[in-house]
Amino acid sequence: MADSPSLADPSDTRHMRRALALARRGVGWTDPNPMVGCVLVRDGRVVGEGYHPRVGGPHAEASALERAGEAARGATAYVTLEPCSHYGRTPPCADRLLEAGVARVVAALEDPYERVQGRGLARLDAAGIATESGLLEAEAEGVNAGFFKRIRTGIPWVTLKLATSLDGHTATGSGESQWITSEAARADVHRLRHAHAAILTGSGTVLADDPSLTARLPEGGAHPWRVVLDSRLRTPPGAKVIAGPGRALVVGARNAPDGRRQALEDAGAEVLGLDPDGEGVPTLDGVFRELGRREVSSVLVECGATLAGALLRGGWVDRLVAYQAPSIIGVGGRGMFDGPPIGSMAERVGLRVLERRSLGPDLKLVAVPRQGG
Amino acid sequence: MADSPSLADPSDTRHMRRALALARRGVGWTDPNPMVGCVLVRDGRVVGEGYHPRVGGPHAEASALERAGEAARGATAYVTLEPCSHYGRTPPCADRLLEAGVARVVAALEDPYERVQGRGLARLDAAGIATESGLLEAEAEGVNAGFFKRIRTGIPWVTLKLATSLDGHTATGSGESQWITSEAARADVHRLRHAHAAILTGSGTVLADDPSLTARLPEGGAHPWRVVLDSRLRTPPGAKVIAGPGRALVVGARNAPDGRRQALEDAGAEVLGLDPDGEGVPTLDGVFRELGRREVSSVLVECGATLAGALLRGGWVDRLVAYQAPSIIGVGGRGMFDGPPIGSMAERVGLRVLERRSLGPDLKLVAVPRQGG
Repeated sequence: MADSPSLADPSDTRHMRRALALARRGVGWTDPNPMVGCVLVRDGRVVGEGYHPRVGGPHAEASALERAGEAARGATAYVTLEPCSHYGRTPPCADRLLEAGVARVVAALEDPYERVQGRGLARLDAAGIATESGLLEAEAEGVNAGFFKRIRTGIPWVTLKLATSLDGHTATGSGESQWITSEAARADVHRLRHAHAAILTGSGTVLADDPSLTARLPEGGAHPWRVVLDSRLRTPPGAKVIAGPGRALVVGARNAPDGRRQALEDAGAEVLGLDPDGEGVPTLDGVFRELGRREVSSVLVECGATLAGALLRGGWVDRLVAYQAPSIIGVGGRGMFDGPPIGSMAERVGLRVLERRSLGPDLKLVAVPRQGG
Repeated sequence: MADSPSLADPSDTRHMRRALALARRGVGWTDPNPMVGCVLVRDGRVVGEGYHPRVGGPHAEASALERAGEAARGATAYVTLEPCSHYGRTPPCADRLLEAGVARVVAALEDPYERVQGRGLARLDAAGIATESGLLEAEAEGVNAGFFKRIRTGIPWVTLKLATSLDGHTATGSGESQWITSEAARADVHRLRHAHAAILTGSGTVLADDPSLTARLPEGGAHPWRVVLDSRLRTPPGAKVIAGPGRALVVGARNAPDGRRQALEDAGAEVLGLDPDGEGVPTLDGVFRELGRREVSSVLVECGATLAGALLRGGWVDRLVAYQAPSIIGVGGRGMFDGPPIGSMAERVGLRVLERRSLGPDLKLVAVPRQGG
């Protein structure tokens, strides 16, 4: 690797940034796979590009190699994730890169998936190919934050979405909430849904608002799983969240009435009893682990104050996405979070703000909660 | 006026913009006078500039003319407000411009003050000087929004300031509020105080927080009047809001105990009984009209939810300035507004956002409330 340019080489960085942009094109479609992008460069010229467009579709490396053809010989491959070394839905990408005669492989990071974990790069390295990893690693982590969290912990990435007035209310006292935010903000929510593998809500929200929780995008969106937390299976079988496209999962208690279970199943939903020891209340831990087991990498939660409060207190929230409308609902409005009150300012939940952006008249805030600060 | 350049002339606009920037230098110091700036231009060259630095200080036109000296002859004067025509603390500026031989006077707008109201420009016009008004009129209005509102309606401009968490709480349930927002936001509040002629608060806030409500700026600030709404004169004579620099006014009911009134007066405060018909509760209308009578052009309100709710409902708020910290206080926190709950989304108060700006980790929002939207 003595002759290879340093990782700080600006052209390396540029090509990897392009590969990351390609990877992101798969957003919402690759689950349970990660998004991956690949750029092939020979003599400073891009000879092939590719990305993983959807689960079951070609891998990024395969597409880029196909585009490059003979030009791949002697090229550098920039990949946003270590090339796979195992036979999955497609043959291993490491082998394909070898066969194509690629001279150097730069990966943004190693694949934490247990069937890869460095084996892809090791295989290339053993075949005499120059390999490097760690270029734009943090960005590459961010692109697949859900996938990485699930692979490492068994638990999906959790995004909590809230839409509020300036004074922190999600609805009027009578429960009216449509619409607090603008069309622009709501269009953004559909993108957010598309980017997640599942949408989680509570039966209270289903009963109050009967939301569809689908990703309605102009260009068509992937419909995430819809998951309803519903101890007593109060969700009406005719609810939009059950009838809509894609999988619907109702998570209740094992002792919930069989009739309700049957009615929901007849309507097309899968019903799970996830209360530990059958005590009647599913735990968040149980729900998220079950979703992780089913290879759901990311969950968007759209819910009322009770579930939002429990998620926040429990430290489950990886990202808070708050849409704030320039309006005042005032006294009696529904709060964002419910649960035991904090005693002092020291106990408030701090937020590290990642993004603040105007969406029409509204403000979108993306933040990471940190307990006690 | 046939030979004078059109009002759309870019150099006219540029000079007026400069005059407005000069005017703003007087912010916080000119009350009860308006801020005024003046630029003198001859043959395309600026020959003099001036602004009104403080009440009792020289007028903008006088300063600019003094700087220009003989060069003022034949010049165009750009003034952000119609030159005065009456003898006030200084001789009329219209006369001075005439004496200096200025050829043309461009005013951003006419002075609504009853002793001027077009007479300044008329006087110049009658003397054969080319006069125009209306250039950058809206900006000029904005610079002196408080002055204009008071002159036209007898009521000061009202800015409501709030500092909240993301979930709309101004304090924890136990009343702890120091500090929700960052040092950067609090420094901005001191600028806001400096820019207003009076700070209004309620006795509840004084009793809970004992705030100083002074404008503490690195370069020194004008200390606005401090006004406490306090029906029963519960404000302790030793409160910082009474003892601090500048005038302190306590507005109570006429039947408040004489002993308390005397103690507050002994501590240096002025005490007013402003309850109509002596029914024990001062009205907001009464308070604002009294402040208007005393030539207070602008009032910054820093208060609790009760007064904030009454101001919002009553349509008194000309500007809402909200500092929002990236934190969650959660259940039991104090709300921004108190009062009767709204029945439906249609009744919420809409906000027209004028500014959104980061201040350290916090967000500053400046908005105009509009009832029912």
